[in-house]
Amino acid sequence: MSRSPGRKQENHKISRELFVLTYGALVAQLCKDYEKDEDVNACLDRMGYSIGIRLIDDFLARTAVKKCRSYSETADVIAQIAFKMYLGVTPSVSCSSATRNEFSLILDKNPLVDFVEELPAERASLCYCNILCGVIRGALEMVHLAAEVSFLQDRLKGDAVTEIGITFLRKPEDRKHRRN
Amino acid sequence: MSRSPGRKQENHKISRELFVLTYGALVAQLCKDYEKDEDVNACLDRMGYSIGIRLIDDFLARTAVKKCRSYSETADVIAQIAFKMYLGVTPSVSCSSATRNEFSLILDKNPLVDFVEELPAERASLCYCNILCGVIRGALEMVHLAAEVSFLQDRLKGDAVTEIGITFLRKPEDRKHRRN
Repeated sequence: MSRSPGRKQENHKISRELFVLTYGALVAQLCKDYEKDEDVNACLDRMGYSIGIRLIDDFLARTAVKKCRSYSETADVIAQIAFKMYLGVTPSVSCSSATRNEFSLILDKNPLVDFVEELPAERASLCYCNILCGVIRGALEMVHLAAEVSFLQDRLKGDAVTEIGITFLRKPEDRKHRRN
Repeated sequence: MSRSPGRKQENHKISRELFVLTYGALVAQLCKDYEKDEDVNACLDRMGYSIGIRLIDDFLARTAVKKCRSYSETADVIAQIAFKMYLGVTPSVSCSSATRNEFSLILDKNPLVDFVEELPAERASLCYCNILCGVIRGALEMVHLAAEVSFLQDRLKGDAVTEIGITFLRKPEDRKHRRN
């Protein structure tokens, strides 16, 4: 306990297990509150959005990340810096469109579902980790990047990997004069 | 990002900010769900209990903590090992009874309330962090220690410190032949 390479840094970290279990309690509560999976998903997304618009300040304050010059760079920052910093994992990034505005974050391991075996049959449409989509969406919006974020694959639903899709919504002026 | 003194250890850690904001979303949801603060408090305690009875396995697996020989030792383990491991803070411990079964964990800084300024006036009886009481109670119960755990002081309510009271409930046989 006494080895502290930079105490301030250490204080920013907590154990993942407590977070994962607390998040599980949150999802369970929403499943009590809402009958339809779609409503739970929407609520998690809204909550995530509220978190994202605040977390971005923390992120910018604690990293030396400069303004990204492309959607691709932004996707890399989300995966390699933000995910690593906040969840301790680094998804791989793939660009899934010729128009270079759609990206996928591929998680071999999703730290949020450590204690979740599989979704109950009656909750087959639940996007258990949907809060993450909201967080990304909210954070991006605060740096003036509109995006749609959603789960494309989910290991909890039997898919081989967990995949979060991010589609950056181009502004009309983007197409005319792209500012680098 | 690349300096990793023990990668496995690193993976157990996540950023506190995300946890704190997610916990805030949970409390906010419960405040929507329940009109009375007492009901929110009870719900947080129940959630914490469910977390505690699972978290204890993780705790015992990751620490070399042996069976404690006294309530005092148990309180120290909670403060110095469990709080440090899961929340990144170490409360001070004081024994507040002559019977040596009542302890206080004193937190100068409560990591769960980082983004909370103060409780809204209409939520004056809310024990915002009550989940912690449930976690402690649940974890203790799994090692056969019955305890009552509650907030005695709370900086969110204007107190000078945040104080969690733990009262170990003696079993009748304790008084006759104490098994060290």
